[in-house]
Amino acid sequence: MKRKGILIVVSGFSGAGKGTLVKRLVEKYDSYALSISATTRQPRAGEEDGREYFFLQKEQFERKIAENGLIEYACYCDNYYGTPREYVERQLADGKDVILEIEIQGALKIKEQYKDALLLFVMPPSTAELRRRLVGRGTETEEVIAKRMRRAAEEAEGIEKYEYIVVNDDLETCVTQLHEIIIAAHNTPNRNQEFIENIRTELEGEK
Amino acid sequence: MKRKGILIVVSGFSGAGKGTLVKRLVEKYDSYALSISATTRQPRAGEEDGREYFFLQKEQFERKIAENGLIEYACYCDNYYGTPREYVERQLADGKDVILEIEIQGALKIKEQYKDALLLFVMPPSTAELRRRLVGRGTETEEVIAKRMRRAAEEAEGIEKYEYIVVNDDLETCVTQLHEIIIAAHNTPNRNQEFIENIRTELEGEK
Repeated sequence: MKRKGILIVVSGFSGAGKGTLVKRLVEKYDSYALSISATTRQPRAGEEDGREYFFLQKEQFERKIAENGLIEYACYCDNYYGTPREYVERQLADGKDVILEIEIQGALKIKEQYKDALLLFVMPPSTAELRRRLVGRGTETEEVIAKRMRRAAEEAEGIEKYEYIVVNDDLETCVTQLHEIIIAAHNTPNRNQEFIENIRTELEGEK
Repeated sequence: MKRKGILIVVSGFSGAGKGTLVKRLVEKYDSYALSISATTRQPRAGEEDGREYFFLQKEQFERKIAENGLIEYACYCDNYYGTPREYVERQLADGKDVILEIEIQGALKIKEQYKDALLLFVMPPSTAELRRRLVGRGTETEEVIAKRMRRAAEEAEGIEKYEYIVVNDDLETCVTQLHEIIIAAHNTPNRNQEFIENIRTELEGEK
């Protein structure tokens, strides 16, 4: 079967370790491309344009929206965040599985446009472990942690919208598991419509 | 996550190599149990009761039907074929993934009763290869082969009812792939409802 790239959306609770997981996946296997978001927020110290984000002016971002150049976007805290379409489509056409790290509203918007997109949800092994990781960062106040935990409770409502869950206990185990799930996902009928139709046409010819 | 067994239904064209594939899978990994069908047809030379089939009298089979002791059954060429419920349920409770090799009507009946059953469809790499395998058996007349090919065309209509397709080109590669698909299938939200509900309850407690 000719391999077509899958658009893979990774969501999960803040503190579940999505960012590290996705970075390691792309590092470890060469079948992936990581989509970089565009944003109008200011770069933080150490962030580089085209690495963490594409940093755009508000006018540039709004022009991209108008041109249908983003496959999804949202506005948080007065800043835009979005996924540039061109990079994603070029990589998919090239047979790469393209990874987007994005929250649930964006994930559902993408599924509407790309019906074969694969939606994955990263979970911590337990709530206690989630709290431990948030506290362990050492950068968050108790108030912020409480807010994150409440946000996680809301996000948990949407898990059934995702095709697979991935429990991030040990990083390397989880990366391997994620990779195997994606390989398996290449074998669903909807992602092999062309191969199936070819076999059908040939079998009709045998009648 | 506590592992619960999955009921796995393997269908596919006659000549796609389902039987060999399933036998090798169960041999290679100890997480599987192979369900043995009951039938009222006569044993063929070399077949053993409880290995290829449980060979039953018509009255015994009909008593099993009446007692709801079969999870599905059908009648072909005046003989009954069916899947005894007790073995399947005992193995699932024990955490084993139970494999049934069965055709599409049976597969759909099972999915109605076991909503978390996993439906897999085995395909040959091409129609030419399917024909080659049927001819290669050397036991079939041209008329039988033509009938099988027509039957395959009908079966191909139902592929979208299955969750995954597996292309059987090289046996060992295909066995590994089948195993990996099953491992991935353990990670869908519907098969982890208890784990997800636990996390939700804990997160609610954090509010």
